Amino acid sequence: MPGDHSSKQYDLDLEAIRSKVLSMGGLVESQFNAAIECFRGGNAARCDEVIKNDESVNRLEVALDDACSHLIVKRQPAANDLRMVIATLKVITDLERVGDESTKIARTAKALHERGLVGVLNHYESIRLMANTSAELLHDALDAFARLDHKQAVRIIGQDAVIDHEFGAVLRAMITFMMEDPRTISTALDTLWVAKAIERIGDHAKNIAEYVIYVVEGRDIRHTDYVQTQKAS
Amino acid sequence: MPGDHSSKQYDLDLEAIRSKVLSMGGLVESQFNAAIECFRGGNAARCDEVIKNDESVNRLEVALDDACSHLIVKRQPAANDLRMVIATLKVITDLERVGDESTKIARTAKALHERGLVGVLNHYESIRLMANTSAELLHDALDAFARLDHKQAVRIIGQDAVIDHEFGAVLRAMITFMMEDPRTISTALDTLWVAKAIERIGDHAKNIAEYVIYVVEGRDIRHTDYVQTQKAS
Repeated sequence: MPGDHSSKQYDLDLEAIRSKVLSMGGLVESQFNAAIECFRGGNAARCDEVIKNDESVNRLEVALDDACSHLIVKRQPAANDLRMVIATLKVITDLERVGDESTKIARTAKALHERGLVGVLNHYESIRLMANTSAELLHDALDAFARLDHKQAVRIIGQDAVIDHEFGAVLRAMITFMMEDPRTISTALDTLWVAKAIERIGDHAKNIAEYVIYVVEGRDIRHTDYVQTQKAS
Repeated sequence: MPGDHSSKQYDLDLEAIRSKVLSMGGLVESQFNAAIECFRGGNAARCDEVIKNDESVNRLEVALDDACSHLIVKRQPAANDLRMVIATLKVITDLERVGDESTKIARTAKALHERGLVGVLNHYESIRLMANTSAELLHDALDAFARLDHKQAVRIIGQDAVIDHEFGAVLRAMITFMMEDPRTISTALDTLWVAKAIERIGDHAKNIAEYVIYVVEGRDIRHTDYVQTQKAS
């Protein structure tokens, strides 16, 4: 049983890790925004920058996983405290994957630039709405994680249908382009890969929100009808 | 410091968890195979079965996360032992996502059935190769996790390019269909979503292999050129 002193030290160590996870979140958010900027028409150098910066995201993942693991061994947290560390470990994985998706968007944007195809389709507008929704969900999920805001987490999980709906709109727009002019097929597919990546980023935001609820509630609400129940009540 | 007795108990508890993770792996493998079977031309009832079985995968995820967490609190493992528990927690997340991707394949297959479109394109052959590769990688990754086989894990990580190559082949085949007959666009896109899901399953197999190396080597090789170095030596 840790005494008061080591329990206080535990809190300090945990707070240091949480603050670094939030920095990682900030980096990943700016990677996503930059990638969307590239897709809209940034230059190839900007795309390369996003791709290069993913290394920093990856380094943070490894360092933070390590910090969590050290914390467990050194401070031997009780069940309640451990829940936060496990949630943090899972949040780190999701953030790293958001970094990966942002890199994929930047790579696609770069390929479009190289083929001189940026702006050939009116693809940006159809993507913008989705990107805004996902960026907002990611931001709100990190905020909910920082403040352990249970209500906000529940709200985020309920937004899944919005992204699905917006993806459907992109899909229909791209099918129309392809039907009208088969020469646009390749570019339309690139746009759809970007839309898929944005959809994934929304999924990761939802995962983060679920971990917040897991910490706050001390119960695992993944794969339950918990959110429906909360909305109905 | 745990004594001999509690250390032995730790080993037993850990072994029980590992064995359940492997059962979860087996379930997830059969979900993936069944989903591909559905895509080839199974009936709608079979698709529903895959979708329904995902609930069992989800329940296993929650139960196993919980078991890992209890193990840490009860047995307070030292750094080396903890590494295995953390790797197990991450493997569980990857397996659950493989279940999700399999469900997505089954849903797409069901939609194709409902539109009477199975076999309209020669899409199965173009998918088969990819599905076989991913299924093999997943199987080998679980096997490497069971036996903590470091060599096999390294080999799995090196197979990434194979899946990418096979995805490229599916993509080209689908673009050809769409160019030749724009009425096939919607069905070709469905095939591409299935291909993406299969690609993801390959990624999860790779993640599992990375966790095996993390446990065996006691170092985090994610995002390093470790695999290149091993292959060169």
